Amino acid sequence: MEQHRILLEVSYDGTNYHGWQIQKNAISIEEVLNKELSTLLKEEIEVIGASRTDAGVHAKCNIAVFDTCTNIPANKIANAINHCLPEDIRIQNSYDVKADFHPRRTPTKKTYEYRVNIGAFEDPTKRLYTHFTYLPLNIESMREAASYIIGEHDFESFSVAKKQVASTVRTIFEIDIREQENEIIFTIRGNGFLHNMVRIIVGTLLVIGAGRKKPEDMITILEAKRRTAAGPTAPAKGLCLKSYEFDVL
Amino acid sequence: MEQHRILLEVSYDGTNYHGWQIQKNAISIEEVLNKELSTLLKEEIEVIGASRTDAGVHAKCNIAVFDTCTNIPANKIANAINHCLPEDIRIQNSYDVKADFHPRRTPTKKTYEYRVNIGAFEDPTKRLYTHFTYLPLNIESMREAASYIIGEHDFESFSVAKKQVASTVRTIFEIDIREQENEIIFTIRGNGFLHNMVRIIVGTLLVIGAGRKKPEDMITILEAKRRTAAGPTAPAKGLCLKSYEFDVL
Repeated sequence: MEQHRILLEVSYDGTNYHGWQIQKNAISIEEVLNKELSTLLKEEIEVIGASRTDAGVHAKCNIAVFDTCTNIPANKIANAINHCLPEDIRIQNSYDVKADFHPRRTPTKKTYEYRVNIGAFEDPTKRLYTHFTYLPLNIESMREAASYIIGEHDFESFSVAKKQVASTVRTIFEIDIREQENEIIFTIRGNGFLHNMVRIIVGTLLVIGAGRKKPEDMITILEAKRRTAAGPTAPAKGLCLKSYEFDVL
Repeated sequence: MEQHRILLEVSYDGTNYHGWQIQKNAISIEEVLNKELSTLLKEEIEVIGASRTDAGVHAKCNIAVFDTCTNIPANKIANAINHCLPEDIRIQNSYDVKADFHPRRTPTKKTYEYRVNIGAFEDPTKRLYTHFTYLPLNIESMREAASYIIGEHDFESFSVAKKQVASTVRTIFEIDIREQENEIIFTIRGNGFLHNMVRIIVGTLLVIGAGRKKPEDMITILEAKRRTAAGPTAPAKGLCLKSYEFDVL
């Protein structure tokens, strides 16, 4: 069959991986996908990922595309490859896309979720997927603080990107903060995120929620355009790449 | 100080334990608690647990009591012992109780939660704390089926207890079934549960939810008073002992 491009919706528990991207001496999601797809399809497969998530970060839906000459129908790939993958990686869906579809060069909206476990002591069943804090958090303060960074802004203060990216301007459409049982869940939707941006935003909101900074300090932090103006980077394990919306497919 | 009795609210991730109860050649929650409390308090401690949860079952709040002559105030024990415990066991609270308070001989209400992950494929971040099924489940059918076992009944069909217990009559106060993201969560509250009772009830409700039996079959299953009349035992990892309510403390 002719070469064609297939898209995978990839979910994973990032606990035991050194992130998405292939690297020496450490196991990555990308490496496992390449290896298992190559074995299944009997050709050398190299996936292109939409998000190079950091070590320890989870995903409900990261996107990967790859080119193949297989005659297995695209929608059967998910089930076939799931039988080969370790239990902490699962393909939720697979389908054909145009040959020139590139997940990092296509306009997109991404949603991340960050989970914080609150209480006197950590809940052991949440320890792999949440960041624990015993500090009481004021949700209203965090909501007010978050409101100041909605829209198109230069997010240099919330990034460790330096000069690697052409622009540090991004648009955040929405930050939802809600309490559910013993968790506070931050849902952040934007048109793209700088390196560590979600984790630094959450780390800063937690400083404000704990009353150590005021909600309106978010404005000065944003205007400073310096990483040191913002709060700490919240731990990787609380972060999960939740969903993708592509403007064109 | 004189001997006195302290109560612990114990939460744990049951994944790596062979249940609550001490046994040869396998690690248990009880064993770890006895060992770490004995080291901390410098006397031989033996906890009495409220629920002897099975291998792989989790707890937000199981109850343990123990006798000690320590002069560490009871409310400081939780924090002190948490520094010694592995990260998959955490004491949420500790306080003094009467010397004759026995958690298995005191009238109580218990709430269990059972989580089912639904969807085309398993969510890797839920695999340790839910049971996965790709079968579409009819929530209304399961709610109707559950309504037939509310109240005081002989639950022999939903038990593997045989002749170990004096009576197989128990009271279920409430079964709540709700959908949340890609999970169906069963919350079951009762005055006591036979061995495997919650898992067999859920296993039976799943058979009905999948349309393989009718909701009203729950009545015949209950009346049969035979384990084989009910559905399969749902896997341990989806079960979590959620809370305890004691009538007297």
